Amino acid sequence: MKRIEAEPIFAQSEKLFERVYDYVLERIKRGEWQEHEKLPSVRVLAKELSVNRLTVLKSYQLLKQQQHVYVKDKSGYYVQPGGRMTIDSTHDPVLSAYVQKSHLSEIHQVQAAFQFSIALLDPNLLPNLYFSEYVKKVFDLYPKVLGTYSGTQGDAELREALCDYFSKQHQFYLSRDELMITTGSQQAIDLVAKVLVKPRDAVLLERPTYSPAIDVFSRQGARIIPVEIHPCGYDLEQVERLMQTHKPRLFYMNPTFHNPTGYTVPAEQRKRLVELAEKYHCLLVEDDPYRDIYFEEEPPQPLFSYDTAGCVIYIRSFSKYIAPGLGIACIACRPYYMKALLAAKSLSDSGAPLLNQKIFLHYFFSERMQQHLGKLRTALAIRKEVMEEALSVTDWKWISPTGGFNLWISLPETIPMDHLLAKSIEHSLTFVPGSICDPLREKQSWIRLSYSYMNEQQLRAGISQLVNLSRLYF
Amino acid sequence: MKRIEAEPIFAQSEKLFERVYDYVLERIKRGEWQEHEKLPSVRVLAKELSVNRLTVLKSYQLLKQQQHVYVKDKSGYYVQPGGRMTIDSTHDPVLSAYVQKSHLSEIHQVQAAFQFSIALLDPNLLPNLYFSEYVKKVFDLYPKVLGTYSGTQGDAELREALCDYFSKQHQFYLSRDELMITTGSQQAIDLVAKVLVKPRDAVLLERPTYSPAIDVFSRQGARIIPVEIHPCGYDLEQVERLMQTHKPRLFYMNPTFHNPTGYTVPAEQRKRLVELAEKYHCLLVEDDPYRDIYFEEEPPQPLFSYDTAGCVIYIRSFSKYIAPGLGIACIACRPYYMKALLAAKSLSDSGAPLLNQKIFLHYFFSERMQQHLGKLRTALAIRKEVMEEALSVTDWKWISPTGGFNLWISLPETIPMDHLLAKSIEHSLTFVPGSICDPLREKQSWIRLSYSYMNEQQLRAGISQLVNLSRLYF
Repeated sequence: MKRIEAEPIFAQSEKLFERVYDYVLERIKRGEWQEHEKLPSVRVLAKELSVNRLTVLKSYQLLKQQQHVYVKDKSGYYVQPGGRMTIDSTHDPVLSAYVQKSHLSEIHQVQAAFQFSIALLDPNLLPNLYFSEYVKKVFDLYPKVLGTYSGTQGDAELREALCDYFSKQHQFYLSRDELMITTGSQQAIDLVAKVLVKPRDAVLLERPTYSPAIDVFSRQGARIIPVEIHPCGYDLEQVERLMQTHKPRLFYMNPTFHNPTGYTVPAEQRKRLVELAEKYHCLLVEDDPYRDIYFEEEPPQPLFSYDTAGCVIYIRSFSKYIAPGLGIACIACRPYYMKALLAAKSLSDSGAPLLNQKIFLHYFFSERMQQHLGKLRTALAIRKEVMEEALSVTDWKWISPTGGFNLWISLPETIPMDHLLAKSIEHSLTFVPGSICDPLREKQSWIRLSYSYMNEQQLRAGISQLVNLSRLYF
Repeated sequence: MKRIEAEPIFAQSEKLFERVYDYVLERIKRGEWQEHEKLPSVRVLAKELSVNRLTVLKSYQLLKQQQHVYVKDKSGYYVQPGGRMTIDSTHDPVLSAYVQKSHLSEIHQVQAAFQFSIALLDPNLLPNLYFSEYVKKVFDLYPKVLGTYSGTQGDAELREALCDYFSKQHQFYLSRDELMITTGSQQAIDLVAKVLVKPRDAVLLERPTYSPAIDVFSRQGARIIPVEIHPCGYDLEQVERLMQTHKPRLFYMNPTFHNPTGYTVPAEQRKRLVELAEKYHCLLVEDDPYRDIYFEEEPPQPLFSYDTAGCVIYIRSFSKYIAPGLGIACIACRPYYMKALLAAKSLSDSGAPLLNQKIFLHYFFSERMQQHLGKLRTALAIRKEVMEEALSVTDWKWISPTGGFNLWISLPETIPMDHLLAKSIEHSLTFVPGSICDPLREKQSWIRLSYSYMNEQQLRAGISQLVNLSRLYF
């Protein structure tokens, strides 16, 4: 938080006493003025800030009313101790552990005309008109659906259908007891971290990676060990060395149309990774939200397909491209992990809402949806090409992804990224700075641009805007 | 896990080698036979267990195949080290923290004809036929609802409507930035615990209390301090003493039609509790899921109404009686806590599904729903009376609740509760044993019976069944 330090700003202010109030409170919070310490007299502070004494008095009175300061024997104002309950959360050690800078969610909260930060599907690409049909069907089939809890693990009918689907698509050998429905993949990652990772456990994360995963595993107190991801996968010797050295509890990975890079780990590496995981007792947590969004050929089978020893935990999200408003994902894993995940889930919520599960069941497995997926792939491939074309006027570098929602772009190092982001937000445009995708918080000259959320026209206009802004730095 | 120790059981077994397998694995897991230790020879173990040598050999081979043991230089079988990945979760220290006994969710998983353990509304008491009307309305109004994320904090329109509602009903002074939508109250409690409680913080919990709250705060490593709840509230002198002595971070409470007792903390205590909270910097986390289910007069206003210092965090759930299948609850609190709760929520999931929020918005604030609430109260009051009448043949003791879903009943101490529960489950009947609602895990002679989930006929039949079973112990 940057606060006003000099007179001119005070002088311009319309609500002068509020600024003085902030000035004083900030010093109390920072500990510059400590508990029971006497505040500067009204006269002294007024002079110091070049404001009217009445303004200072008014500020002190408000501070008193809000119990930040107290008055002693008419001798002056003193700092109230234990302001815990009335001070900003950034100063509470427990609260502040949650209020860090640069959460991806904070960028998402910015309202902007061009939201390149949002790796979500444009709602206009969904067959919205047909959705209500399916919803009515759900109400006909399950008239009491809104009155019924699904249970912690999720609706048995949906789990059965997903097991069948996984078995046909990916040769998973899976019973419905080994599958749990979660409220999106974010919850799945959160549950896995809670159940498996204790403080100081080593955890391997791709570099770069899905930004909230860094937050989740950090919150668990994990020692995060980065694994570089390249266009053709990982350096497996490095992975083995890291497993040997750090004995990581797990490797959280997104090997298919990886977020943010779009890279896909090839089939032969997948097999070997499962062997390494088994050998070094390192679980592989395979996050797989973009599998169906391929532009050329289908991606290799999930690592889970290669796993016979129960060392892969598979997270599959459907929300991103089927129906973000439903929030349906699932975790597949072996019973000894499922038991703990279920216990953790039962403390997190009372199970995914049944309505959403039933709608998803009838919608996802319908012929129409499967047809629609083909159209979706085409639409997204076109959007990707439009973005790439718009970017071709620059010297920025990226590897064209064969699936997913994002371009991962290297900008000239001369561009100060924080400044460009701030400037962009001013011009109603957002993107994801590479540093928040990097467990080491570097990658300063990289950005993630999503082409999934805006239409062709918006993509062209937005990229043109961004390119113009970046040219300010030459 | 209790395992077979003696010959007769082995002798009766149909799959003898599997039993030998279990026997060996159990010893490895327990650490009786340690890593790289040599297993007993086939001959010795066969003799010890009085089984055929081939049976032991077959077991050892299966253990080898599953990598629990290995063979060295043909000299025998040895325990494979680091069996972590293939052993039961009850033996993994991190996993096992989640897999404790007696979770309420475990009792809920029991399929039974008479589910007195379930404090949920009977779906038949909901106006299911009218639900689909509202759902269609939602799709007409928001055709892209399934394709849209609501954001972490929840739909702005719903938050606005809830602020209005709370302001009219309870004189809350609240802006929509101070309100967050959660997936049920379970998630709300979980988020509050995550954000506010660090290991060894003291936390006050009512005794008895909502069982999963004990689990959530225990998981955070809190020191749990029980506060007895009585028919007319708490002993406020005790509360003050506990706040003084233990400096608790928060007091999690359910002061209105308290679960499991049904007690309501009177208005004058509420005011005083807020004063105490402010004085001792102890947050009050007010969980309020049953407020609308009153049988006589409306309950006193929430503690949040009395709070001017921002020391009450208010959790209001609507799921239980509006639509369990929607899973809608909310948290109201001041901005410094909201900021941290939002960060935690963004790591837990991507926001409550928008569809559910929109359905709830149009359904809850409709005239029909408000009319329906009146009918619901009558129906539940009747069910309560039916249960009480059916119980009147016993010498069991309870205080008739004036709202909520539960009877909290004291049974004669001669009844062994674990045995009665096991016996009941055998007879397809479940209830909640008092001990799991007690932070001290005592209250052995108390049980919670919910009258909300079954109709009058089922209530009569079920109670008759339970009473008969309890008579076995005289």
